[in-house]
Amino acid sequence: SLGNDGGDPMTPTGKSDRATRIGVIGLGRFGRLMIRYLAQDFTVTVFDRRGRSDEIEALGGVLGSLASASGCDVVIPAVPISAMEEILGQIAALLRPDCLVVDVCSVKVFPVQWMRRWLPDSVAILASHPMFGPDSAATSLTGRKIVLCPERIEKARYDKIASYLKSKGLVVIKSTPKAHDRQIAVTLALTHFIGRSLDEFGAKALAVDTEGYQRLLHTLEVVTHDTWQLFADMYRYNPYAGQEMRDFLSAAQRIAQRLETQADEMPTF
Amino acid sequence: SLGNDGGDPMTPTGKSDRATRIGVIGLGRFGRLMIRYLAQDFTVTVFDRRGRSDEIEALGGVLGSLASASGCDVVIPAVPISAMEEILGQIAALLRPDCLVVDVCSVKVFPVQWMRRWLPDSVAILASHPMFGPDSAATSLTGRKIVLCPERIEKARYDKIASYLKSKGLVVIKSTPKAHDRQIAVTLALTHFIGRSLDEFGAKALAVDTEGYQRLLHTLEVVTHDTWQLFADMYRYNPYAGQEMRDFLSAAQRIAQRLETQADEMPTF
Repeated sequence: SLGNDGGDPMTPTGKSDRATRIGVIGLGRFGRLMIRYLAQDFTVTVFDRRGRSDEIEALGGVLGSLASASGCDVVIPAVPISAMEEILGQIAALLRPDCLVVDVCSVKVFPVQWMRRWLPDSVAILASHPMFGPDSAATSLTGRKIVLCPERIEKARYDKIASYLKSKGLVVIKSTPKAHDRQIAVTLALTHFIGRSLDEFGAKALAVDTEGYQRLLHTLEVVTHDTWQLFADMYRYNPYAGQEMRDFLSAAQRIAQRLETQADEMPTF
Repeated sequence: SLGNDGGDPMTPTGKSDRATRIGVIGLGRFGRLMIRYLAQDFTVTVFDRRGRSDEIEALGGVLGSLASASGCDVVIPAVPISAMEEILGQIAALLRPDCLVVDVCSVKVFPVQWMRRWLPDSVAILASHPMFGPDSAATSLTGRKIVLCPERIEKARYDKIASYLKSKGLVVIKSTPKAHDRQIAVTLALTHFIGRSLDEFGAKALAVDTEGYQRLLHTLEVVTHDTWQLFADMYRYNPYAGQEMRDFLSAAQRIAQRLETQADEMPTF
């Protein structure tokens, strides 16, 4: 069990464990993907403001109230980062004392602060960043990465969860919120920035192309599949992303400047 | 034969044709690659200012004077774009009247102007851009692309050359200098600009990374394998590259501006 009720330990083989009840708050792009995978092994109760029970059942979960989703052994808020603090305030009083809250935000410093601020001290906290989505994990989780920051959780419980995730084929990276946000400011946020910039520039497939350009177009396509809100939140709530973006733009300006200076020395034809 | 001497036609199977003599001017990164491939089918004479005969022979060619390289059936200047006009002026009087000059510059508008200006009217002109290099075509030409702009060449001779290149596994793209430079300003020059900017920014491998970022690092590595001179020339001599670069930078600034505006609306925590 991923709960803390002393029940059957989760086996490393990912054995089904329907006794553990998982509550998911929100039915966005990532929420849908997560429900589909978790419902293979657990009982998943989903709170969705819009009450889309048919869609939730098709994914293998059941629609529930905010209270019933929050009363599960494990509760996973899967809402936009900008809605996280409000949701934490709403569910705090509805959680079981021995519950585990796992966030899935693509930034970690702020959500961890918020969880520590709003959740009762008895509630365990595991911060996570599943580094995949509906596109990259459409058919399989194998080789996909998930970052785990064990904030306030017993070692045995953490190990059980890490083992379960590994048994699903995921690569588990243990980190801290700061180390995560510093790296993700470059590897995720800056990559999205370059993809969005190419999209804004109007980059499109051309006959006389190169493999490098095809890779850039691929990046453009991947990042524009995500919502603008996720992109904006990645910057708004990552303490390091804005600076890395400005550093990249400065670097690009220096290269442009160097080219223009040399072009001035161009002989006339 | 790729010459215009009425000899044995080149067969589409890429049959060996040692009677055709090809002169290569220059021994740079691309020159070396080209000599290695051409020497499999032709007699290749190489003019190298520094007289590196051992290296040329290891590639399958023979060192020759500027006059002997320029006296071949097909002459290929393989010098930096910025040295092209001077070389054309030097070899003009050394060419056979029925010779074919093929350039291999990564821009086409200016080199074609220069070839028309400097080469005798009797000399045929085929502008080309082999879109591969020592990295991408290290072990095979299969699937690599080459753009051909038939500037001043009989159809039969052009067809024979195109067939030969196809028989080597190359994908032949027929274009015009303007259409080539417009597209390459984005697919090659802008890709190099983004790779150089990432290098200047200091992008390096990180533990918490994404596939998108790995693709960007790959672009960085590929473009920094080429010389700064090739990069600078790509901009200096492509009439459209500078504008595309500025358009991309403006697009990136607009995205940054949009993010910063939204960050201003960020609630205090």
